[in-house]
Amino acid sequence: MTSPLASNLAKPDPERDLVIEREIDVPVALVWKAWTTPAHLRQWFVPKPWTITACEMDLRPGGIFSTVMRSPEGQEFPNLGCYLDVVPEERLIFTDTLLPGFRPSPNPFFTAALLLASNGSGTRYTAIALHGDAEGRKKHEQMGFYDGWNTVVDQMVDFIKRQ
Amino acid sequence: MTSPLASNLAKPDPERDLVIEREIDVPVALVWKAWTTPAHLRQWFVPKPWTITACEMDLRPGGIFSTVMRSPEGQEFPNLGCYLDVVPEERLIFTDTLLPGFRPSPNPFFTAALLLASNGSGTRYTAIALHGDAEGRKKHEQMGFYDGWNTVVDQMVDFIKRQ
Repeated sequence: MTSPLASNLAKPDPERDLVIEREIDVPVALVWKAWTTPAHLRQWFVPKPWTITACEMDLRPGGIFSTVMRSPEGQEFPNLGCYLDVVPEERLIFTDTLLPGFRPSPNPFFTAALLLASNGSGTRYTAIALHGDAEGRKKHEQMGFYDGWNTVVDQMVDFIKRQ
Repeated sequence: MTSPLASNLAKPDPERDLVIEREIDVPVALVWKAWTTPAHLRQWFVPKPWTITACEMDLRPGGIFSTVMRSPEGQEFPNLGCYLDVVPEERLIFTDTLLPGFRPSPNPFFTAALLLASNGSGTRYTAIALHGDAEGRKKHEQMGFYDGWNTVVDQMVDFIKRQ
């Protein structure tokens, strides 16, 4: 990677970052499509029986990335942010610290980096959550980061295989 | 402009944004150079008798933009952020809400957009500060936004003319 992200992403900070690394047996092109097609992402992006009831994407820096997550009880939780870096089938960076058009969010929390690499017929899948401090990382971990993010990877792989 | 910034920048929000629009009699190319060359920026970027004692730039999305401002009494105030959008001689967007590599800042405040357009031999110069809420805008205004940002434009024009 030649971007300034290289240092953060090649060497995550254990104090402030959360990382998931997986080898999955679906091709990079379909993983990219699952992440960048609203109708696809709605099928897998939140652990079931939660659902995604809305999703909007404008895949360019400053473009909107929004989802609405709905609990089994019917309560809705909107998430609004923007993309920062979009390199097809390789890297997708987005954040909730900036709203669409790069306006600061009143409720900033984290930046997420999805890194993809082809590995035979499968994909080396890395997801990193970057936080401003150790407190942010800890809060995200206690919210169930590892369980949640791994569950949705499983759901995504199942979804891709059913296509 | 084709970027998602268009809506924010074409129509700033009077509740959350602060805007300076000026016609200045120096060419766009030299204004761009003044903003994107550390040795130049150090000459004008803070109202005198304050000084800039350090400046680092990596002019690409996620790249560092840092300055250290020094008061006449010798106290130093570091500013650290990153660029978000870099279109030579047209648009320069940066923020302190994300550190280099897009890591969330523990102390987010604003995003700045510099917009340049050629106007005869001069430049139509627009600077916008985007905040997360009205409170952020008000705080920035009370810190002396209009006086400070206009003063440094005057200093920049003087610097360019002395070159």
